[in-house]
Amino acid sequence: MSEYRYDIVQGYWVIIAPNRNGRPNEFMEMQWRRAAESCPFCADHEHQTPPEIARYCLPGQETWQVRVVPNKYPAVYAHEFWAGSGTDPTQPLPGYGAHEVIIESPEHLLRLTQLDVPAVHLVLKVYQDRLRSLRQRGDMAYGIVFKNLGADAGASLEHLHSQVLATALLPPPIAERLARWQHVHRTTGQTAVLRWLEEEQQVGTRVVEVTDHFAVVCPFASRLPFEVRIVPRLPQPYFESVRSEQLWELASVFHRTLRRVEHAAGLPPYNVIMHTAPFDSPPHDYFHWYLEVLPRLTRTAGFEWGTGCFINPMEPECAAELLRLGGETTACSE
Amino acid sequence: MSEYRYDIVQGYWVIIAPNRNGRPNEFMEMQWRRAAESCPFCADHEHQTPPEIARYCLPGQETWQVRVVPNKYPAVYAHEFWAGSGTDPTQPLPGYGAHEVIIESPEHLLRLTQLDVPAVHLVLKVYQDRLRSLRQRGDMAYGIVFKNLGADAGASLEHLHSQVLATALLPPPIAERLARWQHVHRTTGQTAVLRWLEEEQQVGTRVVEVTDHFAVVCPFASRLPFEVRIVPRLPQPYFESVRSEQLWELASVFHRTLRRVEHAAGLPPYNVIMHTAPFDSPPHDYFHWYLEVLPRLTRTAGFEWGTGCFINPMEPECAAELLRLGGETTACSE
Repeated sequence: MSEYRYDIVQGYWVIIAPNRNGRPNEFMEMQWRRAAESCPFCADHEHQTPPEIARYCLPGQETWQVRVVPNKYPAVYAHEFWAGSGTDPTQPLPGYGAHEVIIESPEHLLRLTQLDVPAVHLVLKVYQDRLRSLRQRGDMAYGIVFKNLGADAGASLEHLHSQVLATALLPPPIAERLARWQHVHRTTGQTAVLRWLEEEQQVGTRVVEVTDHFAVVCPFASRLPFEVRIVPRLPQPYFESVRSEQLWELASVFHRTLRRVEHAAGLPPYNVIMHTAPFDSPPHDYFHWYLEVLPRLTRTAGFEWGTGCFINPMEPECAAELLRLGGETTACSE
Repeated sequence: MSEYRYDIVQGYWVIIAPNRNGRPNEFMEMQWRRAAESCPFCADHEHQTPPEIARYCLPGQETWQVRVVPNKYPAVYAHEFWAGSGTDPTQPLPGYGAHEVIIESPEHLLRLTQLDVPAVHLVLKVYQDRLRSLRQRGDMAYGIVFKNLGADAGASLEHLHSQVLATALLPPPIAERLARWQHVHRTTGQTAVLRWLEEEQQVGTRVVEVTDHFAVVCPFASRLPFEVRIVPRLPQPYFESVRSEQLWELASVFHRTLRRVEHAAGLPPYNVIMHTAPFDSPPHDYFHWYLEVLPRLTRTAGFEWGTGCFINPMEPECAAELLRLGGETTACSE
């Protein structure tokens, strides 16, 4: 079982998720499983995962290409009871939610760029399906899809996978962001994301690529070297609503962006985060979904943990230049 | 030079601090210096640091025990001009500030627990001196002392050291926290830290130790396994104002707490953060200084970066129990 807890001193939220297999004496002994033989995500090892939620094949294939399974060590749980979102911040709330794993290849692949564009397209389609399905349950407030690639990005298994996490509570930092976005939308008629994107396109120096429907940009206030956002050029609240043709374009842009990042940064560990509109109270006309890629080349240190501000040793203008070049040079002109 | 930048999409602040020695092609090649021969912080290598700001001896010693030097690769700089805190969040602000290194031992020691209590007391006294000195300049809004111990905690040199960073801008997440603390103080007459501490002492399960003037507690909503706060039992806004006798008590409590953490968690990398009242506009009667120890046994992953919420796999009740036992057992009764 797990709990949502709020810290009244520093003002953050935490999910306390004790895990029998994550007990203290095992923290330092965590094995980074490299061998495909013992990998629970590989084909023929299906019995090692909890019972499957869904499986997907590529056109013409008979065996699975993508599987969705419950997370064996979930951060949130499907409790039988749920008293609704609590109001007393000194009391813990039960950690109600859903936590799934998307296994993105039957072979023991390590990087999304080892897939071709049709396989990446299928992965994005599964993201859509799982978000849609969790939204339709009606008892979740928020859902997010993320990928931890590499131990330094928080992964404990190397086999290519993503996670879907839905929470009955709208994460308070997200609630604050939404309030700000609503305010911007009310006062300007534009989404906050679009206002940012228009400024980025006007300046130009941080834009990596623009396609028919998407822009790829290293944000003005990037927290990390080679941080990238992939953003639809026109506001759309729900990633789940992206139509087939656009999803193919996104698969291609996403694949190419990851190749650029790997090329420029030397196959770094990274996180991918899909930000889509929360599950509750539509319509979210102020929301504008986007995809983030966060290479994890640096470590957050005392300053970041102490102040909530980030120190980024690389100008995003420089990062964008290197990414535009496809990483073919490592010298930045600035 | 560096810049403060605000992200209008996600709402965070960043210091963009490009560093000639941190250029992209060097990220992956960063060497973790282990050898004392090449360490710029060791005795007899004083010429390898920028000119000294201060040096301290232990009573009866003739050679230095602690040195303070400017950070050679600072995140913030002493610009000659400073236009004051800007108001347009789409514009960068110059990264005006001060960034110093406190070298905490002439020998090549790696952990604060390798010092005895008098040497730890001297380190805390230097923290006080540097904060007092930067406060008195009058052109800084905020100062923080932090220690990154171990590469996984963000350190690039292993020789025992801390950093002092002062900024001309009050970091906005800190400003938000202060507003909340002021509100609590106005409505209840107590500091937010004291309200939290009283509840912790009433519950008791997360309290590690209580001495005459200090309490050591694993917070209710700990973000990390073995996260600990050392808090004065009575509100005091300024760590710099702690008197000699109490500072000796703190040195002893701090030293013991680090030993507990090292014992229970197996010599982990960690950050230490000293939170003291900001430099501007005293009196800060709502502020209550405290010291944080953040062991870095886990990695933040996609969920944390995407939502601003933390997933902690260890109950702080369990962490406190293990710390109370001095780490002599690794089994938690819960």
